[in-house]
Amino acid sequence: MIYIDDTITAIATAPGEAGIGIVRISGEKALIITDEIFESKQGKKLSDYPVRRMTYGYIIDPDRNEKIDEVLVYYTKGPYTYTKEDVVEINCHGGVIPVKKILELVLRKGARAAEPGEFTKRAFLNGRIDLAQAEAVMDLISAKTDKGFDVALDQLEGALSKKVSVTRQKLMDMLAHIEVSIDFSEEDIDEVTLDYLLHKSKEVEKDIEVLLKTADTGKILREGLSTVIVGKPNVGKSSLLNALLRESRAIVTEVPGTTRDVIEEHLNIRGIPLKIIDTAGIRETEDIVEKIGVEKSKEFFNKADLIIFMLDISTKLTKEDLQILELIENKKALILMNKTDLPQKADLDKAKELIKNKKIIKISLIEEKGLEEVEEAIEELVYKGEIKAKDRLLVTNVRHKNSLERALQSMKEGTEAIEKKMPLDFVEVDVKNTWEALGEITGDTVAEDIIDHIFKNFCIGK
Amino acid sequence: MIYIDDTITAIATAPGEAGIGIVRISGEKALIITDEIFESKQGKKLSDYPVRRMTYGYIIDPDRNEKIDEVLVYYTKGPYTYTKEDVVEINCHGGVIPVKKILELVLRKGARAAEPGEFTKRAFLNGRIDLAQAEAVMDLISAKTDKGFDVALDQLEGALSKKVSVTRQKLMDMLAHIEVSIDFSEEDIDEVTLDYLLHKSKEVEKDIEVLLKTADTGKILREGLSTVIVGKPNVGKSSLLNALLRESRAIVTEVPGTTRDVIEEHLNIRGIPLKIIDTAGIRETEDIVEKIGVEKSKEFFNKADLIIFMLDISTKLTKEDLQILELIENKKALILMNKTDLPQKADLDKAKELIKNKKIIKISLIEEKGLEEVEEAIEELVYKGEIKAKDRLLVTNVRHKNSLERALQSMKEGTEAIEKKMPLDFVEVDVKNTWEALGEITGDTVAEDIIDHIFKNFCIGK
Repeated sequence: MIYIDDTITAIATAPGEAGIGIVRISGEKALIITDEIFESKQGKKLSDYPVRRMTYGYIIDPDRNEKIDEVLVYYTKGPYTYTKEDVVEINCHGGVIPVKKILELVLRKGARAAEPGEFTKRAFLNGRIDLAQAEAVMDLISAKTDKGFDVALDQLEGALSKKVSVTRQKLMDMLAHIEVSIDFSEEDIDEVTLDYLLHKSKEVEKDIEVLLKTADTGKILREGLSTVIVGKPNVGKSSLLNALLRESRAIVTEVPGTTRDVIEEHLNIRGIPLKIIDTAGIRETEDIVEKIGVEKSKEFFNKADLIIFMLDISTKLTKEDLQILELIENKKALILMNKTDLPQKADLDKAKELIKNKKIIKISLIEEKGLEEVEEAIEELVYKGEIKAKDRLLVTNVRHKNSLERALQSMKEGTEAIEKKMPLDFVEVDVKNTWEALGEITGDTVAEDIIDHIFKNFCIGK
Repeated sequence: MIYIDDTITAIATAPGEAGIGIVRISGEKALIITDEIFESKQGKKLSDYPVRRMTYGYIIDPDRNEKIDEVLVYYTKGPYTYTKEDVVEINCHGGVIPVKKILELVLRKGARAAEPGEFTKRAFLNGRIDLAQAEAVMDLISAKTDKGFDVALDQLEGALSKKVSVTRQKLMDMLAHIEVSIDFSEEDIDEVTLDYLLHKSKEVEKDIEVLLKTADTGKILREGLSTVIVGKPNVGKSSLLNALLRESRAIVTEVPGTTRDVIEEHLNIRGIPLKIIDTAGIRETEDIVEKIGVEKSKEFFNKADLIIFMLDISTKLTKEDLQILELIENKKALILMNKTDLPQKADLDKAKELIKNKKIIKISLIEEKGLEEVEEAIEELVYKGEIKAKDRLLVTNVRHKNSLERALQSMKEGTEAIEKKMPLDFVEVDVKNTWEALGEITGDTVAEDIIDHIFKNFCIGK
């Protein structure tokens, strides 16, 4: 266990104009620092009040005797806190300046600026939550849909960790059995032991497979389905986007931090978060291929989980249309034939080969027809008809998926070794590898640099 | 006083990924609603705990028996709250989904969605703060620089309100004096009364003038100096912006809610907030006039408080340069001659007439020369050499400025009436008008539609 002895601080609310902003302090000096800079309406220090009591007063810069802001402050003693350390939270006015001024003062008084996710990292290092739960915290925060949020909350409550633990316990039992057999038996391994091990290893394989089954869907719910809408000018790309936005119950935001060159719109289609990617001007451009070149276009399409290609059913297919169809031939794509309100002139026979594996939906955005089918097609694509939207999805994280895949691989090798009646030392290695791969999920067997890497992706203040 | 009997709720933190989000509830049913949806770790209701105690537990949808989020909640009884009503604040995970889910649940349980600024409006209607203080709350939140924030905090503490009250008291004294004189004297007004009134009215005039003197600077500190950078391509517009951004200690953000056509960069130059306006493409465009047309360009320039026009000292002035000089002839503008590192070829004599009232600064962005002077020029322009940056600025709000101007006008008419020894009834009207105009600032004499209008500009959740 790493010993943590400094006091960290960060702004815990999102930047922007709002009613309330929060500066959070965690560590041994949290209360000492606060006592130096806070004065209650009654002229008292925070330490004069009971723990957990929301206390009204002012943050005052003691060096300049200058009032910084009107605040509500409370203090909780560790280990009954998020980090298991002493924690103070200062609720001040929202907006960029108040939180910034208070943060600067807290830093000046001896706290250190927290790194991204450092509060949660301390919760993990201090043993309050395991690694999968810590990751769930970030998923909660960045969830784009209710469904994505629910899955993360499940994970924070330990749903995944519990399943993993149960399976790891089975592996432990196997290891104990193997050790005993190795120690006490000089002869051939008896059939009873082999039967037992085979039975257990099959069970573990199944456990892992059940978890893995939901991984792809889980990932999409967590990260969003990155989607590109293409088609020639006036085919209705913007109208489609707007129609989908109207249906979407999500809060639509431009993602902060994205450059101006790539704009993302976030939609929520039947609980599935869609990330519509719009590189600068693509939406208005004449021709994506001409605009960004064939190679770039390919790259662009490759990055997308889903391509929605719009055709105009009332005009003939153009050279560009065919070019795009070629580019997306092996990609997951929906083809929308828009403008069914007009007489049909497009001849899809030309493109038969290119579109044979694609779902084609006829729509009329003017008559508002076909949108339902588009949503259905997206839903089907994500859940692949196997997983129902209401099923419990346990694996949402690529890191977990990778660990599970490695665990499954090791277990399969173990099963094979058992079936081939290979020496138990061989089997032992496979079982141990499986046990370790699963332990990476909860953080029991994970390397420090991986932990650092995980928390780097957190937002600051959590 | 308007009777307020429903319970309102809103998200009080800014949207975005963050550690903490807050849902605030104010009104009679705040605790009843919370008791229905909150369960502490110990399985108790919030009302089982002392007031103001930050309590850990879960928000649970009782109709679906579904856990919504892990939260910290506290309750304060009116009138010891922001709104003077009962208030509950639910601290949940940050991000868009948790706050949205909790808000939906609170609404379903009988609260009403708060309008923008409605919490602060209640604080005003319930008599906790006056109108100028309520407006200061919004200024605090939207402050772009430390200086702007300090001025707003001053105003929230009642600095402006106190000054206004003192002056209104003087007007009250005048009115009392006038009433007595009118009631008891049938003859000519005695000289003593006239002297007294004249003395007082001059005093009031001076009071108001002192306040008005800081109004323009105050407005800029509050709203930012809207600034346009123009010049032909490659003259160094982006480099200037980047150089200023490097100097700026402000948090640079794109303002949420702006359309994609107009991008604003916020800078902080020596405590002055600059809003650099960049209409789509202007920064890269060949020629602003050609791009948006002469009329549009004029309009564009008219909207700006400051135009920074960049010329290239190493090339001859072009037709377009002269055209822009003409357009900005009567505007506040700085002319920057960039590229002093190269041999000078530009001939300003041609434009002598057009630039005679303008400050011209030679700079070299490559050699990083002259930036200091640019900042100085901006500072000078804002403070006009009259007001020092450290002076107390009391008037920052256009509405207050307008009221002060009307008050001053009325008082001057009153002074004139006194000097001309007109009947006291006439003077009384002027004094009353002055009193009322000043009362608009604190909200004592303001119409309800104006109040509504003021709070409409608040953010939701405050």
